[in-house]
Amino acid sequence: MTNPKVYILDSGSLVIDRSQIMWHFDIGTPVRFPVYSVLIDHPDGLVLYDSGYDLDHVLKVLPFELPEQTPDQTLTAQLAKAGFRPEDVDIVVNSHLHFDHVGGNGKLTHATTVLHRDELVHARVPQPFERLGYSDMNFDLGANYKLIAGDDYEVLPGIRLFETNGHTAGHYSLLVELTGENSMLFTGDAAYTFENLEREVIAGFHLDPSQSVESLRRLKYLARTLPADLYPSHDMDPFLSWKKAPEYYGG
Amino acid sequence: MTNPKVYILDSGSLVIDRSQIMWHFDIGTPVRFPVYSVLIDHPDGLVLYDSGYDLDHVLKVLPFELPEQTPDQTLTAQLAKAGFRPEDVDIVVNSHLHFDHVGGNGKLTHATTVLHRDELVHARVPQPFERLGYSDMNFDLGANYKLIAGDDYEVLPGIRLFETNGHTAGHYSLLVELTGENSMLFTGDAAYTFENLEREVIAGFHLDPSQSVESLRRLKYLARTLPADLYPSHDMDPFLSWKKAPEYYGG
Repeated sequence: MTNPKVYILDSGSLVIDRSQIMWHFDIGTPVRFPVYSVLIDHPDGLVLYDSGYDLDHVLKVLPFELPEQTPDQTLTAQLAKAGFRPEDVDIVVNSHLHFDHVGGNGKLTHATTVLHRDELVHARVPQPFERLGYSDMNFDLGANYKLIAGDDYEVLPGIRLFETNGHTAGHYSLLVELTGENSMLFTGDAAYTFENLEREVIAGFHLDPSQSVESLRRLKYLARTLPADLYPSHDMDPFLSWKKAPEYYGG
Repeated sequence: MTNPKVYILDSGSLVIDRSQIMWHFDIGTPVRFPVYSVLIDHPDGLVLYDSGYDLDHVLKVLPFELPEQTPDQTLTAQLAKAGFRPEDVDIVVNSHLHFDHVGGNGKLTHATTVLHRDELVHARVPQPFERLGYSDMNFDLGANYKLIAGDDYEVLPGIRLFETNGHTAGHYSLLVELTGENSMLFTGDAAYTFENLEREVIAGFHLDPSQSVESLRRLKYLARTLPADLYPSHDMDPFLSWKKAPEYYGG
């Protein structure tokens, strides 16, 4: 089997408070963090894990997160670096449906959206404290869903989803198995940073804090036993050191 | 039946961030808030709802909350204003077991401690993010518990507990029925302030955010239908306007 190519697509950056990355820690300390998507060019299909944020939406609804996204960091421009157009994507997997993970979904007109069923429930019927997170509902217009639940779901051979709930109601981390290289486990927002993992401190945005703790521990267990390298969702220093499209892992 | 006397006992004040009172709002804005207990001199027994914070504990474990508690604001001094000693208290009801609600429990050597069973479980076996909240475990030395669960528990005739979970695993708000005066519904930390109630925004400390929202709504419903006046736990402006021991409500 051809080894998949894994591209990390840069979606720009946002600012939140450190106490929202590390719950209750260092209140009043703004932190700029990266937002990215993962494109997997697999022999059986082109898969995208998350789709970044939509600059217009953030400027309109959450301008206080101070978005920085150049024209080169839109989803379309990033896909082009890997040689693809938005309509080439066969499957988009959303870790969850917060605005900074679904911003490009609407452009993926030929894709099936793989998603946790409970996540769509909460995005469409949010708790009051979830409304801002789920404020970019454009992805829901005309989407072709494949709603799933449960653990260790195989998207395509060697691309697997692990349930890591707590941050939201239905959250998936994504594993890509590579031959001759370490497997890659993209945590999604179950782990914003390596510090969350190491100190077992959860993020300040969450639906179920106890589940969030379990998910942090589960990610460390999976990384050790699969084994796989961990890729947190919003950790600037490691992000800067990773290969970005047009460079890729695997292949 | 003799109308009970209700004394509000001032336990001093602490400082937390406004984003911990109103989750995610106004990060980086310190707010000083009051801590108080409620003494009910009832014909069938002397009941205390919560017992304030222990200054030594806070100075040692949470000095960043900048405690201000004069000698006149210790539990013993406050009970004396109403004409009682700590050993006179028959029943202490803890809304929950966070340090700022149990600080005087250890002094109540003749009291039965009425408590939600789930709350003792979490205080003794906390989640990582609950450890600081449950850091004053002195109340657990030699306590004589009456562990309860479920809703609308009658402590004594006209003193009732309503389950308002979410802030913690097992949380009770307390109602005192008075004749010729409005009943008083002490929310405990299910509602730190009137703003939490009005805007339906939960506090930044919580075990189950969704339950916390339900509890805010439930308190408003109870206040309207019982009916009763609401007394939030940590709201400085209203607190300053309330009668404090040796003055009392009812009687």
